[in-house]
Amino acid sequence: MNPSRFLLTGLALGAAVALNAKIVTKPVAYEHAGVKLEGFLAYDDAKVSADKQAPGVLVVPEWWGLNDYAKGRAEQLAKLGYVAFAADMYGAGVVTSDAKKAGELAKPFYGTPLMAERAQAGLDQLLATGLVDAPRVAAIGYCFGGATVQALAYSGAPLAGIVSFHGSLIAPSAEAVAKTKAKILICHGAVDPFEKPEDIAACKKALDDGKLDYQFISYAGAVHAFTNPGADELAKANGLGGAIAYNAAADKRSWNHMKAFFSEIFAKKK
Amino acid sequence: MNPSRFLLTGLALGAAVALNAKIVTKPVAYEHAGVKLEGFLAYDDAKVSADKQAPGVLVVPEWWGLNDYAKGRAEQLAKLGYVAFAADMYGAGVVTSDAKKAGELAKPFYGTPLMAERAQAGLDQLLATGLVDAPRVAAIGYCFGGATVQALAYSGAPLAGIVSFHGSLIAPSAEAVAKTKAKILICHGAVDPFEKPEDIAACKKALDDGKLDYQFISYAGAVHAFTNPGADELAKANGLGGAIAYNAAADKRSWNHMKAFFSEIFAKKK
Repeated sequence: MNPSRFLLTGLALGAAVALNAKIVTKPVAYEHAGVKLEGFLAYDDAKVSADKQAPGVLVVPEWWGLNDYAKGRAEQLAKLGYVAFAADMYGAGVVTSDAKKAGELAKPFYGTPLMAERAQAGLDQLLATGLVDAPRVAAIGYCFGGATVQALAYSGAPLAGIVSFHGSLIAPSAEAVAKTKAKILICHGAVDPFEKPEDIAACKKALDDGKLDYQFISYAGAVHAFTNPGADELAKANGLGGAIAYNAAADKRSWNHMKAFFSEIFAKKK
Repeated sequence: MNPSRFLLTGLALGAAVALNAKIVTKPVAYEHAGVKLEGFLAYDDAKVSADKQAPGVLVVPEWWGLNDYAKGRAEQLAKLGYVAFAADMYGAGVVTSDAKKAGELAKPFYGTPLMAERAQAGLDQLLATGLVDAPRVAAIGYCFGGATVQALAYSGAPLAGIVSFHGSLIAPSAEAVAKTKAKILICHGAVDPFEKPEDIAACKKALDDGKLDYQFISYAGAVHAFTNPGADELAKANGLGGAIAYNAAADKRSWNHMKAFFSEIFAKKK
């Protein structure tokens, strides 16, 4: 076989593998503080195995709970070659599209250690798969989940980075700063009515004072939930028009910014 | 010749061309409002020609004038396949590393139409090369040049986008907003002492109120001039320690964000 033929065969083989790639998804039951939970694991079994570990990404859902949107993000991450685990924060099957109910579900987590602890339980599940290259793990989250991944980072979790998409902003305390290992990417809707300018300023000041490694990106015209294509319908059903809405440009840009961030934080040390 | 051999020959040819690629650079004399100027053109003549036009990027230098740093950025852009033109704002050969002198040189431009007009003269030179696919043109600028590309966009220049790196922020008037065609990327040092929080807030408010398409990125720990590897030396020589400094992480990240922005704004309509 001459070298040129060999090269072409290799190319054809590579294409065949890519075509046969299958995203494996499965529910994963676990428990935290007496609550039965069910997360959602996704990875590409053509790219990832116990012998061929990949970077891992924890996905923390919006306040609606672990719905199809959050699961879809895990699948997207799996297609990028990552091992993704969408965490369950509320309890197996607890999902709502009612904002009042969602607010009640999310409330016990805000400002309490439970937020980071429940997320950590999900992170533990991700690491327990044996598929993840442990120094290369990140957490991303949406809205409530964006706040959660901040809380998780500030609890000292062993993360290379976090990405908050339209998350409620948490200004870390000096104690939290001292524990933080993760690099931080905040993807924020520039006209998100849920985040007041003074809260944004307080968050940035705490990050600056703490000398944490962060990037804060504001996307023009984007309000809360800008990454969720279902946001407009949820807004309509809950009387939240103008406050939550999908924004295709901001969605695409923030996803690309996340990918660039992952390229940086998941780069192997030379 | 069988198809596989043909493909390989094509690949080999491609590789050879890439190896032989040569970045053409040349000074370009021009004039604006009676001032003799000399800009700096850079492009890859293996990728770009009058028959094979490429996106164009105008580069507007820091307040030091058209120095090697700005020319280096034009060359980097040329390596990415763009036609780059580093504009001369002050006059042929007028360059300084003295902050007092730089301040004097920059002063007549701030807040006057001259800023956009002088930049437009550079843009005209870029377009006059005949190498540029005119709907795909952007302008980037550093510090003073960052302000300048904002002013250029707000003057209604036919730009697909602008990128301001540690530029002084300009809050566009309603009249300016109405004229603006460019998408906007602001790359900002989170602890830049030259930009006060109230000025940042005023700029963002004007962009939000005007519904302009922008992204505003703050980079942790970065001060003024964070993209310029020579900033520390310039700081030392000018007693500006702490106010201007190179930041390798913010430099790399903002360059990558610019590249992603270009991918978006230079994408051909399908």
